[in-house]
Amino acid sequence: MKKIAILGSTGSIGTQTLDVVRANGDIEVLGLSAGRNIEKLEAQIREFSPKLAAVWDEKKAEELAVKIRDTDTRVVCGMDGLLELASMDGPEILVTAIVGMLGIRPTIEAIRAGKDIALANKETLVTAGHLIMPMAKEYGVRILPVDSEHSAVFQALNGENPREIHKLLITASGGPFRGRKRAELAHVTVADTLKHPNWVMGQKITVDSATLVNKGLEVMEARWLFDVDLDQIQVVVQPQSVIHSMVEFQDGGIMAQLGTPDMRLPIQYALYYPNRRYLEGDRLDFASLGQITFEEPDTETFLGLPMAVRAAKEGGSMPTVLNAANELAVKKFLHGEIGFLDIYEIIGQSMERHRKIEQPDLEEILAAENETYQWIESRW
Amino acid sequence: MKKIAILGSTGSIGTQTLDVVRANGDIEVLGLSAGRNIEKLEAQIREFSPKLAAVWDEKKAEELAVKIRDTDTRVVCGMDGLLELASMDGPEILVTAIVGMLGIRPTIEAIRAGKDIALANKETLVTAGHLIMPMAKEYGVRILPVDSEHSAVFQALNGENPREIHKLLITASGGPFRGRKRAELAHVTVADTLKHPNWVMGQKITVDSATLVNKGLEVMEARWLFDVDLDQIQVVVQPQSVIHSMVEFQDGGIMAQLGTPDMRLPIQYALYYPNRRYLEGDRLDFASLGQITFEEPDTETFLGLPMAVRAAKEGGSMPTVLNAANELAVKKFLHGEIGFLDIYEIIGQSMERHRKIEQPDLEEILAAENETYQWIESRW
Repeated sequence: MKKIAILGSTGSIGTQTLDVVRANGDIEVLGLSAGRNIEKLEAQIREFSPKLAAVWDEKKAEELAVKIRDTDTRVVCGMDGLLELASMDGPEILVTAIVGMLGIRPTIEAIRAGKDIALANKETLVTAGHLIMPMAKEYGVRILPVDSEHSAVFQALNGENPREIHKLLITASGGPFRGRKRAELAHVTVADTLKHPNWVMGQKITVDSATLVNKGLEVMEARWLFDVDLDQIQVVVQPQSVIHSMVEFQDGGIMAQLGTPDMRLPIQYALYYPNRRYLEGDRLDFASLGQITFEEPDTETFLGLPMAVRAAKEGGSMPTVLNAANELAVKKFLHGEIGFLDIYEIIGQSMERHRKIEQPDLEEILAAENETYQWIESRW
Repeated sequence: MKKIAILGSTGSIGTQTLDVVRANGDIEVLGLSAGRNIEKLEAQIREFSPKLAAVWDEKKAEELAVKIRDTDTRVVCGMDGLLELASMDGPEILVTAIVGMLGIRPTIEAIRAGKDIALANKETLVTAGHLIMPMAKEYGVRILPVDSEHSAVFQALNGENPREIHKLLITASGGPFRGRKRAELAHVTVADTLKHPNWVMGQKITVDSATLVNKGLEVMEARWLFDVDLDQIQVVVQPQSVIHSMVEFQDGGIMAQLGTPDMRLPIQYALYYPNRRYLEGDRLDFASLGQITFEEPDTETFLGLPMAVRAAKEGGSMPTVLNAANELAVKKFLHGEIGFLDIYEIIGQSMERHRKIEQPDLEEILAAENETYQWIESRW
């Protein structure tokens, strides 16, 4: 039996991870965690009988503890709870499916405890890639990407020599507003923004997909995950989301991973790597698909991508500022407080005013995040 | 220094193999061979100084020996010459770029001598796959595919577990007559047929590409090379010839190899496997490519594919008959003796009348070939 713990088990990636566990029947889930959704967490606890359940919200944790008195699952809470979950005895893999900077400290704890990381939390590498990757190397643990694009690159690199990479071709659907120009984006609604053409995902990532901030964060992650220069990463818009990403090698040969848009595939691939298990679901049918099309990303309109590349090139604490500004801006957008284009405005101004710290440690990263939040709250 | 010998060095694959050798500068060519083109062979000998040069035609071999008296290259001829080349001391890899059944005996000799085979000769596996693959296993040698489609599958399988293959997706350009119906093919000319949309290749293979016999032969080869059932091989028409082939695994993930149509890539990949060397040449540019399209093959019109699948399913000596009938029919077509559709007629009738031998040995394979030739010559 493979043993895992899941950080963020009630979200989109978390529940799909449990779908994969359920379908395979040979993975033991030793830890689960949620922010506040203890109803869903309780159901998961009753199905998977983990040893530990971590709830971020202290009050909710107390409520849950009462509800599941009849089980053998122990409830822990707050950051201490997440850290305990991350480093608990047993799991070989920690799935970090939590959203936000919250995921970083538990990830570091898990690496120190020698666990492989099935990484779905974007902030980990975006803000702390310079800390995480050397640490993973030091402790001999694997960072297994769960994102479909990074998993595609990871699959394309299987059996290949990373030194023979010429470039990574990260594909992008272009989001729901592909083809529109800047002026047309001023008044788009939250509902419009949440209509992703191909993928069913959480709200935050769906907005990030529309702004192309998500693609920018992926470029940042790819740089750390695959140890390439930013100039070696090219974003290709592929609206059908059939090619999940590609690697071009120095001989001109390109290896690509294709499939239907189903997050269970990269999740399962990470859990069983290097093996592939049968996965029930739709298969690509090329004749009925008919075509795959390609475009360059419109970086004049969708500033998320060039802003992220700029933040990545500046490095240090700048990616943290971009990420924090985006996180809060998206929250405000989803709450109807700001318009779509204000997301770029908030990110841009936050980066503008930030005094970059080179090689920030975790405290400095969290401080940069906090400072960015405060500045934005004081202005918008 | 890597050491190789090339069977059929003056043809399309042979000369491109020497391009790869020239570009890399760290491969020693110990043997070269030609059928009759001793002018080209002489130039190759003077450039690469092989120890041995085999010429199929005895008289031409004598002529060559006189011409290159001033060199250290020894000239041999006929089948004995090819066998000597195949098993000569020194080369680790034999590139079998010769066209036709002639390639089989030297390939067997090379396997017995422990050499890896960079296989470009289609007949080897089509007619004798049941002999060659077990022999390669017995002698611990690798069969490295040089064909672009098989190389793409081979690359897609790099690092993967072959038992996790769901199916192979062999791509086909559809040839110059894609979209036409049977009645429109009755009067196509040799010149029309030789206009391949994407690849520059020899005449025989270009005609085979137009009839889809080539794709049928590739399906047969793929079955042996990758040890899959015929039902696990699907042909997908992909007219831009950008995706060179794909493998779908049991999780629904598809790994594909893409690139410009350049045979030097699969040749170089076979010579340096598992390493990829820099290769000068055009690179795929997805934005300017714009799209990749897919269709099902028209097996009502292009009978080459279903006929080959039928021959492969019947097995035994039947693939040899299909191949021999096709070879002679294409020759007659190129000489203006028969029309395009007569190629299918000749193949069909030859298979119809043949009494299949199960598990034929090499003598029986060559006899089936010969008998097929004679029967066709007596009728057309």
